[in-house]
Amino acid sequence: MSSITKGLIEALVAALGADSVRTGEAIEPRYLGDWSGQSSVNPVAVVLPRSIEGVATVMRLCHAARQSVVPQGGLTGLAGGAIPTGADICLSLERLTGIEEIDRAAATMTVLAGTTLQTVQEAAQEAGFEFALDLGARGSCQIGGNLATNAGGIRVIQSGTARDQVLGMEVVLADGSVLSSLSKMVKNNTGYDLRQLFIGSEGTLGIITRAVLRLGPRRSSRNTALCALPDYDSAVRLLRSLQARFGNEVGAFEIMWPDFFEFGVSISRTTHSPFQQAYPLYALIEHAGFVDDGGGRFAEALGVELESGVLLDAVIAQSQAETHALWEIREATAEFPVKLEPINFDVSLPIGEIGHFVDTCRQDFAARWPSHRGFFFGHIGDSNLHITVDGCSIPGVSSEDVDHVVYSLVQQYRGSISAEHGIGILKRPFLGYSRSETELTCMQAIKQALDSRGILNPGKLLP
Amino acid sequence: MSSITKGLIEALVAALGADSVRTGEAIEPRYLGDWSGQSSVNPVAVVLPRSIEGVATVMRLCHAARQSVVPQGGLTGLAGGAIPTGADICLSLERLTGIEEIDRAAATMTVLAGTTLQTVQEAAQEAGFEFALDLGARGSCQIGGNLATNAGGIRVIQSGTARDQVLGMEVVLADGSVLSSLSKMVKNNTGYDLRQLFIGSEGTLGIITRAVLRLGPRRSSRNTALCALPDYDSAVRLLRSLQARFGNEVGAFEIMWPDFFEFGVSISRTTHSPFQQAYPLYALIEHAGFVDDGGGRFAEALGVELESGVLLDAVIAQSQAETHALWEIREATAEFPVKLEPINFDVSLPIGEIGHFVDTCRQDFAARWPSHRGFFFGHIGDSNLHITVDGCSIPGVSSEDVDHVVYSLVQQYRGSISAEHGIGILKRPFLGYSRSETELTCMQAIKQALDSRGILNPGKLLP
Repeated sequence: MSSITKGLIEALVAALGADSVRTGEAIEPRYLGDWSGQSSVNPVAVVLPRSIEGVATVMRLCHAARQSVVPQGGLTGLAGGAIPTGADICLSLERLTGIEEIDRAAATMTVLAGTTLQTVQEAAQEAGFEFALDLGARGSCQIGGNLATNAGGIRVIQSGTARDQVLGMEVVLADGSVLSSLSKMVKNNTGYDLRQLFIGSEGTLGIITRAVLRLGPRRSSRNTALCALPDYDSAVRLLRSLQARFGNEVGAFEIMWPDFFEFGVSISRTTHSPFQQAYPLYALIEHAGFVDDGGGRFAEALGVELESGVLLDAVIAQSQAETHALWEIREATAEFPVKLEPINFDVSLPIGEIGHFVDTCRQDFAARWPSHRGFFFGHIGDSNLHITVDGCSIPGVSSEDVDHVVYSLVQQYRGSISAEHGIGILKRPFLGYSRSETELTCMQAIKQALDSRGILNPGKLLP
Repeated sequence: MSSITKGLIEALVAALGADSVRTGEAIEPRYLGDWSGQSSVNPVAVVLPRSIEGVATVMRLCHAARQSVVPQGGLTGLAGGAIPTGADICLSLERLTGIEEIDRAAATMTVLAGTTLQTVQEAAQEAGFEFALDLGARGSCQIGGNLATNAGGIRVIQSGTARDQVLGMEVVLADGSVLSSLSKMVKNNTGYDLRQLFIGSEGTLGIITRAVLRLGPRRSSRNTALCALPDYDSAVRLLRSLQARFGNEVGAFEIMWPDFFEFGVSISRTTHSPFQQAYPLYALIEHAGFVDDGGGRFAEALGVELESGVLLDAVIAQSQAETHALWEIREATAEFPVKLEPINFDVSLPIGEIGHFVDTCRQDFAARWPSHRGFFFGHIGDSNLHITVDGCSIPGVSSEDVDHVVYSLVQQYRGSISAEHGIGILKRPFLGYSRSETELTCMQAIKQALDSRGILNPGKLLP
């Protein structure tokens, strides 16, 4: 450790207290990794401020010392965006927790960044509202991290991504100044929308410390169906037809290709398909309405689609248990790391082209690696396709080789190499497949404008 | 005209053709003003490129000559954001028109910036979709201007502002480079959301030339009611209660205080209120649903509110003619310039505090100017309050005096001095009432990063 770094650590201890600054052996291993499995290096220190002022102090001191800082939330990211990769100081927001206010008239919640998503969801429910964002890591991920990565998840089709859930935000900038834009207003046209610039910037432009979240009305009725379809085009027709009937009450629209569906069924508790035969495509669909009609309108709509041939078969869950059983097939992804050596992709493509993309991708895989095992599924209503290739099925092939095949194809289809997981360190080498030189230059110019010393999360996101 | 400017004009003529570059007497007066009535000065030239490349050429040449450029759309703005105020070149997008593609599967429309909002709306309808943005100037305003100013309007409560209607965008930057981010994907987490930075930047960061717009399902049923309420808190209760029942099928929620309502009635064709007596507050509410139930569910909901005392009275329109008659009261704003000397405000405030704000504002007006005549109304579901003071009622009082009273109060309530009309030149002196020093510094840094020569719409928006 250099004498400059030593001096910085001493200053941090003096400002925050010894219990808020950990170094060496005192750093718990959990600060070293996220759910991406990417490798990290030991940070210089982990700091755990208890207040916004504490975060600002850390940044002011680090800015003066030109010390790199890695902001950390719940560390559930899948792109390595929050792990230390150099002589970094990790700044954890985990002590900055709590819901400060629920304004029922404005339908807003003001919350500190370290609060878990689940806490936010539950508090919204208790107040008679709903917070729209939802994802598997809800119990561990923090709202600050959700915003910094513009988290997506299952309900994007209904209410958008994290970006769409925020009215106001507070951010500590690279030099320690506090940018406070804690608006509760839906309409606010007073210059550049700085809020949206920080959302999805993966901690490279500032540290989100507080947010004013939008709450929505609570949906009192959820009905789930598993549908069988003849082909992908029918899935798109079904999507648009249900939206024309139900608007944003279409609460989930998850498409599973047979390879994924069969895997999902095999690892589910029931281990058999609810259908008598195999089909070309499956859709798990949720109708989430505001008035409980016992699922009558949803069943009627599916009946119409069955008659017209858009659907080949459909099963509607009749109980909570049946709903869980259907979702269990889709949530088989949790078993990927146990049963496979998963090489995962999270891409997006124009909705109409996803079917063709899947066929082409499968052909490309087969031509290169006849033994490959691939699984295709996704939130198609949001243009989001997930692909998992089992590394065990293609021994000797590196994940970079598979990346190259998938991302080249994504580029060809003008898609995005990251739909919801972000770039982090994992996809950084591939950013140029989705963003042009002009876009990258523009991003660099903004980075330079807001963090001229390059101390915020260096090595992440930007090439 | 300096020799540098002469050389620039010659270069523009050489590049675009003489019919695309107007100077001196050949400049039609309509390029000099917008709907704000703010005064302008004669520009050096008006250029009318016919292609994206033409726009890029103009910017490249102007960048080299350090020539200021004012981007112009339909010139329907209310803040003077698009009028020439110095030795500017006006760059009109009016020849860059047309819908390039409607992708039904993706539910997107790719459109050139100069296309009018109404053309976009109609094309969406024809394709079986709906484009959510709507405002009074629809026939004249252009989609590029709508995006550059983050336009709002009547339907924001349902589908958000212009910001929420865009998946992809193409922008010509200050130096003439073309930033193309024409994504059709809902989910796309590949770095900074540049799109959102340009939306609402009022032409100070780049010139929007093309956009990929989101289309939504078409609402087949619209029912309108005029309601009478005992007080403002009941209006908020009614709003949240209807949203809990109908979600985003609440299509408009327009509150009118008695001063406005009586004015609206007086200038409407029927010239009498649909109610037998006067009430403390009025709400014009639209239920815009996807299934036509003859208005049954809406009527039922209003019945419940009447019984509980949240509503004192309600009239539901039974025909198109009755619907128009009710809207005519709200749209009396069009008569303001005819009947009054309007001093207009477009502010936003936390929804729960608008009632109290109105009372305080009225008291402040009365204390200063007992003869004043003020009108209060707004899109309350979006936190947007409009205020009009009749200048005739306060002779000798400058509009700046009234500005100061209103904006000081807005600042006190942590509101926004511009909900939907933007800043332009009109509200530029007051920006600090809504944005902090840190926010303004941040905006300046971004401006410097993307337009270091300061040639894009100088004198607008930023202090």
